[in-house]
Amino acid sequence: MIHPLPPGTRDVLPTEMRELRALSDRLRVSFEGAGYGEVWTPLVEYEETLRRGDDRAARAGVYRMFDDRGRVLVLRSDMTVSIARLVATRYGGVQPPVRLSYLAHSYRAVERGRGQAREFLQGGLELIGPAGAEGDAEVVSLVLAALEEAGLRRHRIGVGDGSLVRGLLGELEVPEERRGTLLEHLSRRDLVALEVDAEELGLSPGARDLLVAIPTLRGGLEVLDRAEGPVARSAEGLRALYDLLAASGAADRTIFDLGLVRELGYYTGAVFEVYDPAVGFALGGGGRYDELLGRFGTPLPACGIALDIQRVHAAQAAEERLG
Amino acid sequence: MIHPLPPGTRDVLPTEMRELRALSDRLRVSFEGAGYGEVWTPLVEYEETLRRGDDRAARAGVYRMFDDRGRVLVLRSDMTVSIARLVATRYGGVQPPVRLSYLAHSYRAVERGRGQAREFLQGGLELIGPAGAEGDAEVVSLVLAALEEAGLRRHRIGVGDGSLVRGLLGELEVPEERRGTLLEHLSRRDLVALEVDAEELGLSPGARDLLVAIPTLRGGLEVLDRAEGPVARSAEGLRALYDLLAASGAADRTIFDLGLVRELGYYTGAVFEVYDPAVGFALGGGGRYDELLGRFGTPLPACGIALDIQRVHAAQAAEERLG
Repeated sequence: MIHPLPPGTRDVLPTEMRELRALSDRLRVSFEGAGYGEVWTPLVEYEETLRRGDDRAARAGVYRMFDDRGRVLVLRSDMTVSIARLVATRYGGVQPPVRLSYLAHSYRAVERGRGQAREFLQGGLELIGPAGAEGDAEVVSLVLAALEEAGLRRHRIGVGDGSLVRGLLGELEVPEERRGTLLEHLSRRDLVALEVDAEELGLSPGARDLLVAIPTLRGGLEVLDRAEGPVARSAEGLRALYDLLAASGAADRTIFDLGLVRELGYYTGAVFEVYDPAVGFALGGGGRYDELLGRFGTPLPACGIALDIQRVHAAQAAEERLG
Repeated sequence: MIHPLPPGTRDVLPTEMRELRALSDRLRVSFEGAGYGEVWTPLVEYEETLRRGDDRAARAGVYRMFDDRGRVLVLRSDMTVSIARLVATRYGGVQPPVRLSYLAHSYRAVERGRGQAREFLQGGLELIGPAGAEGDAEVVSLVLAALEEAGLRRHRIGVGDGSLVRGLLGELEVPEERRGTLLEHLSRRDLVALEVDAEELGLSPGARDLLVAIPTLRGGLEVLDRAEGPVARSAEGLRALYDLLAASGAADRTIFDLGLVRELGYYTGAVFEVYDPAVGFALGGGGRYDELLGRFGTPLPACGIALDIQRVHAAQAAEERLG
């Protein structure tokens, strides 16, 4: 007798569960210790609410249904939009900064047949109030330190500028309907496809060179020196972040990556991805989203990172095998 | 700007969240210490799977939707059916007993406007293998001890027989369509309504007296002595459980209640409800379900109890206020 589970979901048995709890608890202690109090938001939200935050985040929800009054409900695909709603609703009179963390499942659409999880446990934090490099550095340093306390040794953080590519696509007057493909080619670092895109869009040789150069701007501090034209502005912002990260001892773990494109649309500044050489996928990511809280009526700059607990666990296990 | 939440859901802010985590962790330590390893099952299950376990449990699910192949999915309303599925699927070759625990949200339909939670956090355990009073006593003693370790002092367990009323309704040949109302009157201990029911059903005076007597059979060990006729059989089974509970020091916390009716249909033996005088609602409940695992192809007796963490927290807070 076979009792199938919905695609992208699975049972977790005691041995693995014990390890996931231990890892979650350790991250929670690190976050709490730095003043990030844990919150819970309902798993089910009105699609309208999520869409107010970010249309892509609302569309990323894989499970949606009607309530008894015909309104569309979605299982959250992400905690950040819900926390933005929570802060606007419940922290109206509170003087920023507000430091919040979470440890909860989210549900996201994935391509069928790729064996990806649709149900995944996230641990993350949101820093509301501090703007720019100062806020970014706090969040990045804390996540790197928490992962170190969890036993990771070789983890790195990729740092890009979420506003760079979007700004550039605007300046180059790339039509809205072509941007998705272009962003995908950028995130895949597919230089050949980008050359073709540039040709099809009739970009000037200078614009084409700029576009094709972006995905190659990946590495240490020297990457920022190589940045030219509109990219130089982003480099300047990232240099300020680097100085703060260096002061907290995190410089060695930082990889600048100006081609880093995050899938959600609400990022307005620095964007992040967390890596470990032991596993072949990002352990998490995030960025600065200075416009999201304003959409819920409380304009405040903010920044956050979410870790995929299952993937951090895989990295942790790999590190342990390496001794 | 108001951003409403779906009815029966709410945000939890850090102060409360910290207390809920502390309580959950303490229960988890108690359960793990007694050999109950924690498991996770997907939040979303096929309705067909839940219905195989228990039609009422499947119908209790408040959130349901179609997947991209047109199958109906439900957010679990209960962990027990999912764990029965998990044991049948993943513990096929394991020698019982199997001891499992969980700490997870479930989603259940509630009457609109009554302010009840639709999203609620449950901590519970399932003991698969040991039959009858022996298994029941292990589960009850462990839950009572875990609540004591969590700071409760005056909690009690109501113990009834889930097969008694159902068996009686069969013997009295009460038609299927009348049973729901009758069970509801029994669970409300509405003696006047039960008299009317008995009259409308044309029950004999003896049968009527039996029906009306059941809700009054509530109290200490003396209740079992007062049981007559078909109720005496139930009393015999509960006496064996009492002896085991007395041996583990839990006799004082036990309230026999032969009118105790649990809403889910899968209980086949002893049923339980957990109370604390500080709060006006049951903190949790459960019972013996010897036929559920067989429906998934692995016939094994089993017994479990689930606690509503939010309600236990309320009782804990009330106990602390009382000093």
